Amino acid sequence: MLILMRTTATDEEVDQVCRAVEASGLKPHPIPGRLRTAIGVTGNTGSEGQEQFAQLRGVTEVIRVTKPYKLTGREMKPEDTVVRVGPVEIGNSRPVMIAGPCSVESRQQTVGTAQALRGLGADMLRGGCFKPRTSPYSFQGLGRQGLEILVEARDQTGLPVVSEALTTETFDLVEEAVDVIQIGARNMQNFSLLKRAGMSDKPVLLKRSMSATLEELLLAAEYVMSEGNPNVILCERGIRTFSEHCRFTLDIGIIPVLKQVTHLPIIVDPSHAAGRRDIVIPLSRAAIAAGADGLIVEVHPDPNQARSDGPQALTLDQFEQLVDELGMIIPAVPRCEGVQV
Amino acid sequence: MLILMRTTATDEEVDQVCRAVEASGLKPHPIPGRLRTAIGVTGNTGSEGQEQFAQLRGVTEVIRVTKPYKLTGREMKPEDTVVRVGPVEIGNSRPVMIAGPCSVESRQQTVGTAQALRGLGADMLRGGCFKPRTSPYSFQGLGRQGLEILVEARDQTGLPVVSEALTTETFDLVEEAVDVIQIGARNMQNFSLLKRAGMSDKPVLLKRSMSATLEELLLAAEYVMSEGNPNVILCERGIRTFSEHCRFTLDIGIIPVLKQVTHLPIIVDPSHAAGRRDIVIPLSRAAIAAGADGLIVEVHPDPNQARSDGPQALTLDQFEQLVDELGMIIPAVPRCEGVQV
Amino acid sequence: MLILMRTTATDEEVDQVCRAVEASGLKPHPIPGRLRTAIGVTGNTGSEGQEQFAQLRGVTEVIRVTKPYKLTGREMKPEDTVVRVGPVEIGNSRPVMIAGPCSVESRQQTVGTAQALRGLGADMLRGGCFKPRTSPYSFQGLGRQGLEILVEARDQTGLPVVSEALTTETFDLVEEAVDVIQIGARNMQNFSLLKRAGMSDKPVLLKRSMSATLEELLLAAEYVMSEGNPNVILCERGIRTFSEHCRFTLDIGIIPVLKQVTHLPIIVDPSHAAGRRDIVIPLSRAAIAAGADGLIVEVHPDPNQARSDGPQALTLDQFEQLVDELGMIIPAVPRCEGVQV
Amino acid sequence: MLILMRTTATDEEVDQVCRAVEASGLKPHPIPGRLRTAIGVTGNTGSEGQEQFAQLRGVTEVIRVTKPYKLTGREMKPEDTVVRVGPVEIGNSRPVMIAGPCSVESRQQTVGTAQALRGLGADMLRGGCFKPRTSPYSFQGLGRQGLEILVEARDQTGLPVVSEALTTETFDLVEEAVDVIQIGARNMQNFSLLKRAGMSDKPVLLKRSMSATLEELLLAAEYVMSEGNPNVILCERGIRTFSEHCRFTLDIGIIPVLKQVTHLPIIVDPSHAAGRRDIVIPLSRAAIAAGADGLIVEVHPDPNQARSDGPQALTLDQFEQLVDELGMIIPAVPRCEGVQV
Repeated sequence: MLILMRTTATDEEVDQVCRAVEASGLKPHPIPGRLRTAIGVTGNTGSEGQEQFAQLRGVTEVIRVTKPYKLTGREMKPEDTVVRVGPVEIGNSRPVMIAGPCSVESRQQTVGTAQALRGLGADMLRGGCFKPRTSPYSFQGLGRQGLEILVEARDQTGLPVVSEALTTETFDLVEEAVDVIQIGARNMQNFSLLKRAGMSDKPVLLKRSMSATLEELLLAAEYVMSEGNPNVILCERGIRTFSEHCRFTLDIGIIPVLKQVTHLPIIVDPSHAAGRRDIVIPLSRAAIAAGADGLIVEVHPDPNQARSDGPQALTLDQFEQLVDELGMIIPAVPRCEGVQV
Repeated sequence: MLILMRTTATDEEVDQVCRAVEASGLKPHPIPGRLRTAIGVTGNTGSEGQEQFAQLRGVTEVIRVTKPYKLTGREMKPEDTVVRVGPVEIGNSRPVMIAGPCSVESRQQTVGTAQALRGLGADMLRGGCFKPRTSPYSFQGLGRQGLEILVEARDQTGLPVVSEALTTETFDLVEEAVDVIQIGARNMQNFSLLKRAGMSDKPVLLKRSMSATLEELLLAAEYVMSEGNPNVILCERGIRTFSEHCRFTLDIGIIPVLKQVTHLPIIVDPSHAAGRRDIVIPLSRAAIAAGADGLIVEVHPDPNQARSDGPQALTLDQFEQLVDELGMIIPAVPRCEGVQV
Repeated sequence: MLILMRTTATDEEVDQVCRAVEASGLKPHPIPGRLRTAIGVTGNTGSEGQEQFAQLRGVTEVIRVTKPYKLTGREMKPEDTVVRVGPVEIGNSRPVMIAGPCSVESRQQTVGTAQALRGLGADMLRGGCFKPRTSPYSFQGLGRQGLEILVEARDQTGLPVVSEALTTETFDLVEEAVDVIQIGARNMQNFSLLKRAGMSDKPVLLKRSMSATLEELLLAAEYVMSEGNPNVILCERGIRTFSEHCRFTLDIGIIPVLKQVTHLPIIVDPSHAAGRRDIVIPLSRAAIAAGADGLIVEVHPDPNQARSDGPQALTLDQFEQLVDELGMIIPAVPRCEGVQV
Repeated sequence: MLILMRTTATDEEVDQVCRAVEASGLKPHPIPGRLRTAIGVTGNTGSEGQEQFAQLRGVTEVIRVTKPYKLTGREMKPEDTVVRVGPVEIGNSRPVMIAGPCSVESRQQTVGTAQALRGLGADMLRGGCFKPRTSPYSFQGLGRQGLEILVEARDQTGLPVVSEALTTETFDLVEEAVDVIQIGARNMQNFSLLKRAGMSDKPVLLKRSMSATLEELLLAAEYVMSEGNPNVILCERGIRTFSEHCRFTLDIGIIPVLKQVTHLPIIVDPSHAAGRRDIVIPLSRAAIAAGADGLIVEVHPDPNQARSDGPQALTLDQFEQLVDELGMIIPAVPRCEGVQV
């Protein structure tokens, strides 16, 4: 249920409505907008309370929301959410480029790569410190030491950093160090991790599970938002299909569909979808052309020496080529075309 | 096996090699190139004949081909195949736009649409006359009468036409009328139809089955080519996955991978992948950005009145918008980047 | 729409109703039952004719059918269809065993195998003569000569034979020789082949495509039935998924669901699903335990010498073991449990 | 690497080998067997250490293990693992029946159901207390109170209980209360949870993720085993495919393949695969017929009143029917047939 306040409603009126919602055993989520405040209502809402709330002072309309996802849906918030990370705006008209190595491996590798990437136009730096690995015998990341290196790279370059929070136990560490907290595809339905991310005041980059439907992705984002964190960035990174020529099948069609049903920004990880360097650039062009709000792409100064995911990392030269090509594509993409007004 | 002739080899030398191949129980496929002629050899080839052929006059090298697909592979023919249809070149630097209604429904609908499309920049006209329908109770197409309407549309607009040959029984009819013969996704492994298409001297547009791997698609093209027809256009149109928000999942990654392994042109059908009009334009932009050689897209002057697939047809206005946007994307795409020389 | 005749209705009354249906531009399909005749009505039926037909003499009820499949649905024919092939009944209480080599390779191999299989309890003999092969360079079957060998194997053993009709061109040959005509998975939506099979008076074994939904399978059967052939045997043979340990994923759940929605018998091909001999027996047990009406399984006297699909063929010893184990499972399976009365 | 000790090797010799392994920077996993002890070696093992270890006292052979999964593989431990839970043996010749409601809802519902199930032949009781729910607005389980009810049900019936540990935070609570700790499908790659489970001395029931390959499932089990917990029970519960008639597609073929490659027991959850009550019994029969070591099935005394998953819960009468039918199938299944000796 969504309660629309009048444009002239006072803060006090908003508060009173919220208290009335709580008194009915439901949970209010005030969503301040440019013109007016809306109040999302979650909990086991039937239609009964609807009329009651419509009578309250300052309320102009009460709307039933029929989708299972509420806070993430455009029904509740028609305007695009723009997530701000320092000087970077995600979900605004210009797509953002998040780039960096799969894993933080050393100070030299990471800081050097960050400096090079800044020179080539990257907006943010990515780098894994706690790595989810299919096998217990694979390199698991540098952990806390990696985070320190990331912070140093940010200090030296000004690039905000994003890194994955793998567990609730290590969440605080990651949260303190980074600017955007990544939730990985294998954790998309790790509900305690999602709730913890929802209590953070830092933005969350939520990757789609390789087997999630659009609805399941939005409900995972709903876990984060319903705890109070409105800054969620969705990320498509390929799904599991029978198709063998890529590691995953990039589901390019989810981009324009998400643009219609949610106000959250959506970026694409072409590197994990491809699993092979030689098609990362074409997939990146396709993602931006389809309307993505940005990319998160693996770049390594010497991919053959990478400790994880080397075969899918771009070289710095290739990253430069990618930025050039995207610069020509971006003007061709009407922003938010999918939104039906 | 691939036999490379010297650049100075005479036609007679090529003939002699072909006869030697046949004498070994194998089948020669001469492939004239700009600089030299290559001779593809198919049949149950072991390594034994290799040395023998290397001794023949005019031969410079004999190469073993390890992929199951041979004539379609870049190993045998490194340069791109450009399929010529009247004034249109498919597989050349400029992507082509094939557009038109799902089904030919009436003279007025088809000729009128063709004239409008020509004005908007379409290169070819599509229109189904023999329709593959999941249910026996659905509209099955106008058949021979539809072909006559297509021919009239071509006569009035100059646009070459493409239509599906659904069966070997009706193949002759379609072949005579159209400029490019389409083999539908459900017939991708209808081997007698593929062989019949291989005996045609008209180009074949071969759609990928919704469950075909890349290798199966190329082996289907191999059926056509091994009968002697070198003019095959591959078409990606979405695969079956668990993902529900589109009718099929457009496998965008197959475009750059195909560009590497085959010399055949590859186009994309965004309409059948989407199954919904509102994301056809973003998918189209993505396909061109990923390196596709063209699109085949459903356009209807009044989609709500269409007798089949109305919900996924673009309006003429949307087609115009699409052409405009693609015009900005095309310059950003290096042609044939995937080819490893 | 389904028109139920009274149990006392005369043939003449049935005829009159059929003529009335035709006069309305629809197509009647009389379905004689043990107690009464029903008349399926196909075509673009709205609800308007319903009352009119209910008034006709001999009619007891007119039922609207809401599923897209009609003749194949239990709504139209609640009792199980039993397909009779000589002495064999498919769809009756005892599951049938159809066994034999993937391809008919020689007189000795086929007749010898047939004799051994008869001794081990097989009900029918399978053997491919026209083979659908992914690659044009693979063994394509013995064709007409293979059919002659199959006929001889039947003459010497009394086992009815089943073989695939690959094309409309060779359909007559196969139809004349065999007792059951197989339509392969890759041809499940080859609609001209389905229509030709619908005009045959021999039973049709219709294999599910590797990417077909339940509804698409039933609509393919509907193509056969709507041409007048009521004897269709459905066959599950595995679907395409990401799962790699088998060639296809046997969709065991479709068996009990099909039992609910259709009256047609359903058998299982464990050999093509598995693609590996070592799990064919467990899959076979599972299929019978799930309620399948029979199996079609590849058996070869010397699998290592087989010209196609050797790795998945059972030896004769393994077939004997399979029959023994199934004999213990069959009594545990309530027949037709899925049917909701 | 696997180090096989002589049958006459002393405990001291085993210890010395383990210390030598550690001295090489590797990790030893002693696996005591009936006849001899084997020592699994994990870590970045090349072939260099192999000869060195072969020289140690008490060692008879050193074997390289080529699969990415080691401790879970039959290469390291050829004999079946039998997991003992009180009087229940999982992985032994008789399949086990784990049954109960999806969620623990009340004392009366749970204890009453447990008593009825014991009377009908169930071996263990299942019941969710911490529920993973796709939506944050769905019932999340009774938590600690639910565990108390489960314990009471065990005390009154003697049935061991299994329940899901959803997070590392609540792991201790669940571990203390239950006899077998379940890791859910959505947590199959929650690596911190797997490691925590590996430190428990209680058996772990590990469900396959809906998108996991066989190898990924075994590597998840490897996380548990490599921390020292050898008692892992694998559980197939259906995978994500395009097929719509069930909620997930039960991958019946993984059962015999797992039996070949791993020594761990494998059970099946037919309820979550089906998502609909009416096919749970056929899927259960199929699972046992394919060689599963048991079932975990949802049973509810009044499914229409269930707070979660009611549509897929069997009634008590249906559970009784299931037990009867399985009793006839079990003798038909040779145990461990897949094992290649």
